[in-house]
Amino acid sequence: MKVYNFAAGPSALSDEVLEAAKQQMFDFAGTGVSIMEISHRSKAYDAVHNECIALIRELMAVPDNYEILLLQGGASLQFEAVPLNLLVKGKADYVVTGNFSKKAYMEAIKYGDIVCQATSEDKNFTYIPDVSEIRFRQDIDYIHITSNNTIFGTAYKKDSIPRTDAVLVADMSSSILAQQADVSDYGLIYAGAQKNVAPAGLTVVIVRKDLIGHEMPLCPTMMKYSTQAKNNSLYNTPPCFCIFMATLNLRWIKKCGGVAAMEEMNTLKSDMLYDFIDNSAFYKNSVVKKDRSLVNVPFTTPSQELDAKFVKEAESAGLIALKGHRLVGGMRASMYNGMPVEGTKALIAFMQKFELENK
Amino acid sequence: MKVYNFAAGPSALSDEVLEAAKQQMFDFAGTGVSIMEISHRSKAYDAVHNECIALIRELMAVPDNYEILLLQGGASLQFEAVPLNLLVKGKADYVVTGNFSKKAYMEAIKYGDIVCQATSEDKNFTYIPDVSEIRFRQDIDYIHITSNNTIFGTAYKKDSIPRTDAVLVADMSSSILAQQADVSDYGLIYAGAQKNVAPAGLTVVIVRKDLIGHEMPLCPTMMKYSTQAKNNSLYNTPPCFCIFMATLNLRWIKKCGGVAAMEEMNTLKSDMLYDFIDNSAFYKNSVVKKDRSLVNVPFTTPSQELDAKFVKEAESAGLIALKGHRLVGGMRASMYNGMPVEGTKALIAFMQKFELENK
Repeated sequence: MKVYNFAAGPSALSDEVLEAAKQQMFDFAGTGVSIMEISHRSKAYDAVHNECIALIRELMAVPDNYEILLLQGGASLQFEAVPLNLLVKGKADYVVTGNFSKKAYMEAIKYGDIVCQATSEDKNFTYIPDVSEIRFRQDIDYIHITSNNTIFGTAYKKDSIPRTDAVLVADMSSSILAQQADVSDYGLIYAGAQKNVAPAGLTVVIVRKDLIGHEMPLCPTMMKYSTQAKNNSLYNTPPCFCIFMATLNLRWIKKCGGVAAMEEMNTLKSDMLYDFIDNSAFYKNSVVKKDRSLVNVPFTTPSQELDAKFVKEAESAGLIALKGHRLVGGMRASMYNGMPVEGTKALIAFMQKFELENK
Repeated sequence: MKVYNFAAGPSALSDEVLEAAKQQMFDFAGTGVSIMEISHRSKAYDAVHNECIALIRELMAVPDNYEILLLQGGASLQFEAVPLNLLVKGKADYVVTGNFSKKAYMEAIKYGDIVCQATSEDKNFTYIPDVSEIRFRQDIDYIHITSNNTIFGTAYKKDSIPRTDAVLVADMSSSILAQQADVSDYGLIYAGAQKNVAPAGLTVVIVRKDLIGHEMPLCPTMMKYSTQAKNNSLYNTPPCFCIFMATLNLRWIKKCGGVAAMEEMNTLKSDMLYDFIDNSAFYKNSVVKKDRSLVNVPFTTPSQELDAKFVKEAESAGLIALKGHRLVGGMRASMYNGMPVEGTKALIAFMQKFELENK
């Protein structure tokens, strides 16, 4: 049975990427050994490491005045690394649009004068606050947003991100490489890799060079962007296999037509699913339409009992990891780059069948 | 051509472990998807995660009053995590026996009254200081040692570690699972996984429970042992694939007879090589005999020119990654658990041939 994996992260990788990894398990790039066994100071590894960085630069059109860092610790470590590295005046403004967004804010308040300027928690994060109405403070080091909220299925759109003179920082863990972003809109972008970049264990940071090197004295050496930038992210042993997988995945994205093609495919999939839900009296998505995520689609049936039945029967039909997050309930279909259009079609076909049998 | 990989880390994995990973690339534990694609909150992943911890506990005979944490960031992040978590009185003593040992000390001095009580830097780290002669301070939070010095090929032996009332902390990155250690001798053990445990990207911390929860206020949340212990190392997405590989490797170690069997095999390999070097007028190892490492064997030929020739010709013969670290020069054969006895034999045969051709 073909299995389609709707996990929110770690999430589906393209079969082609997994196949390439499988084929090289005992012989990476003609070395006669696995990528997992070779030194991170070897020429063979160095080529992969630099290709990974170059492909991120190419696919995201990262300008030359930005460093691309390959780190560990996930977005959660960046929740603290960001204020530790960027707070110079000691002030930053946050917009809180979900669980991780709130965590980022709660970590930052330990390090300076941090203000949450807007939150959508009043309606269980089912919308993105209108940032054009927010009076962000003057003389702040940065504004922090979370571009896509995995749990709640909301996202900023190109025209809804804050437009101010302040440095904009975004957690793009669930939108990086899935939709286009103009890097020059941001001072810093960070992302855990496990949704669209690579298996869990890699964190990508894209940071404007002039923002590097002003760390607070208490910032641990390993968390300093300057340490990592100076050493091309090879200050200590990097997560080599994850970076290798990222490189395979980036090659695949490039071959498919780049991030624009990914966005087009992701739009097609989520539009299909949103349209189906909106035209159904049985299924419901509670997110404000203009703020809907391109990759995470939460939905419910008329009852919690049916939700549970849905998840169970879907799994038996090979549609796995559809259970919604406990903070939202119901179901959630995460459809990142690795999810083929056929997977979304299979989900919709199952939803039709389930509705007929249970309404 | 059979390739034997003498890399110091990341380093050789058993073919059996790589084969198991390859076989499950598209279907992990009957899920129909790769371990790289499934949620870290799923039952299937949870089983691997807990098996990994249970196998470390079993194979290292870790007592119940110790937590086993699966983290990211490498030993380098622990250089700061250790003082941030353990300094309560604010004082610790370090013994410096190599490059990483010194880095650990240099990071720690930022956080308290830290004294380097002994160093072997006077003789380029070719010996382990006699710790029985050191007067460690009273009222310190811990003593820090590096159990095996990868670059210099030295190691503490069971009877040469400090025996005091103080909490003993050891960086065991290159000796963990390669030789037996009595965990109860230590308050905390940490290790980057990329030599004997798993591919790079995982850090193992084994810490006595009473030492958890006294973090300095400035310790980042992600670096707090209490955060990770409370969440069974699932506070955020862990490096799932590395943990899966660790589990496969731990199963293999168990099947081979456990850490005792690994130590026996590693002793056999390094004894063979040391004996050969000691009986040769051509090759030389500069380490004080009683302090020689079980897993890292540095050696030289009579000249730098011949060293370079040796490394090049060895590589052509399928004996790769033998170039010594720049701080030592010459060659270095790292022979961790993943190196079969045949690999050491092949190296010695090559060394004999090279000597005949070049003396």
